[in-house]
Amino acid sequence: MHIPQKFKQEEETQLKNVIREYPFATLITHSKSGIEVNHLPVILTKVNGKDVIQAHIAKINKIWESVENGTEVLIIFNGPNCYISPNYYPTKKESGKAVPTWNYVVVHVKGNISFIHDQQWVYNMINTLTNEHESNQATPWSITDAPETYINKMLPAIVGIEISIDSIEGQWKLSQNQPEINKFGVVKGLFEKGENKVSDLVKDQI
Amino acid sequence: MHIPQKFKQEEETQLKNVIREYPFATLITHSKSGIEVNHLPVILTKVNGKDVIQAHIAKINKIWESVENGTEVLIIFNGPNCYISPNYYPTKKESGKAVPTWNYVVVHVKGNISFIHDQQWVYNMINTLTNEHESNQATPWSITDAPETYINKMLPAIVGIEISIDSIEGQWKLSQNQPEINKFGVVKGLFEKGENKVSDLVKDQI
Repeated sequence: MHIPQKFKQEEETQLKNVIREYPFATLITHSKSGIEVNHLPVILTKVNGKDVIQAHIAKINKIWESVENGTEVLIIFNGPNCYISPNYYPTKKESGKAVPTWNYVVVHVKGNISFIHDQQWVYNMINTLTNEHESNQATPWSITDAPETYINKMLPAIVGIEISIDSIEGQWKLSQNQPEINKFGVVKGLFEKGENKVSDLVKDQI
Repeated sequence: MHIPQKFKQEEETQLKNVIREYPFATLITHSKSGIEVNHLPVILTKVNGKDVIQAHIAKINKIWESVENGTEVLIIFNGPNCYISPNYYPTKKESGKAVPTWNYVVVHVKGNISFIHDQQWVYNMINTLTNEHESNQATPWSITDAPETYINKMLPAIVGIEISIDSIEGQWKLSQNQPEINKFGVVKGLFEKGENKVSDLVKDQI
């Protein structure tokens, strides 16, 4: 990914927050059969003190056969994005010098993938993933709410995934190249359009 | 991408609507230097009666040098996505047999990429892209609103992209594998959580 210096995000906390807030990721794997792209929810956790990404796929998804354990993969997290109209820039009225652009936040993680067939591992992973997403439900559902026999029947049809975090980079393209007056204009313009997430992120750059 | 038959979207209109509604795409290219992933807004248009995807990058982004014209690339369009709690399923109360999942819509396009250095082509492409996104502004901004000398200075710093649409596939993972009563439960549960987009898409499956 081409990242102009101005848009480079290097703060680990910010990068990790996007992984946690936008955990539905794009996994890009490469094998003899070419490039494969799958979409799946992940968790960011620690194993032996090191950050890793964990996920699971259906066993019928044969990437666990085509992609060798230890292969380098790329996993992408898409934060919010939206179109930026030159109309948001107050300076446009003076000079006319403005062009549209697109604001966005994206995180790329590179690391080595392992496929895990241990059913207890898969159970624990799904349990953690579930608890994370159920935490804001009025009555959080738990994997133990389902009959044990039902869950035990499912586990052999699932393969676990663990990806080491060997490098992580982020692009925070949020109007940093605009004068302050235009940043305020973007915050206001996006807020009025209901694009609150990108609006708030641009506000953070002021 | 692994797509279970139930979730396969084969209607061209639906696939194209997602490209138009979610035009901020993920472009995956492959060259001697490895896999590169860039994020950019695109337009879906026709050239000589054939559908193509057009976009532009900054010339400083050297993929136009590393990736040869005619190389096959993959371009991904992410529709909405969200977590689905078993709490949304009325049947859960009877049997307890339920697990969480993630609903999402995604489109993958494969085709050959061409990089275009003709400045008139780039001007036209940016003009169309702008008009498309300005159409819902109170006073649409037009590229002719900027001083001609300003735009002419910018054009040499931009490279055009055109991608043929050789194959297109879509995954519409929208609770199709649930009984009707649970689909209604998902529609209601997501609506209450403000996940209107996925809620509406599940409603379309009923």
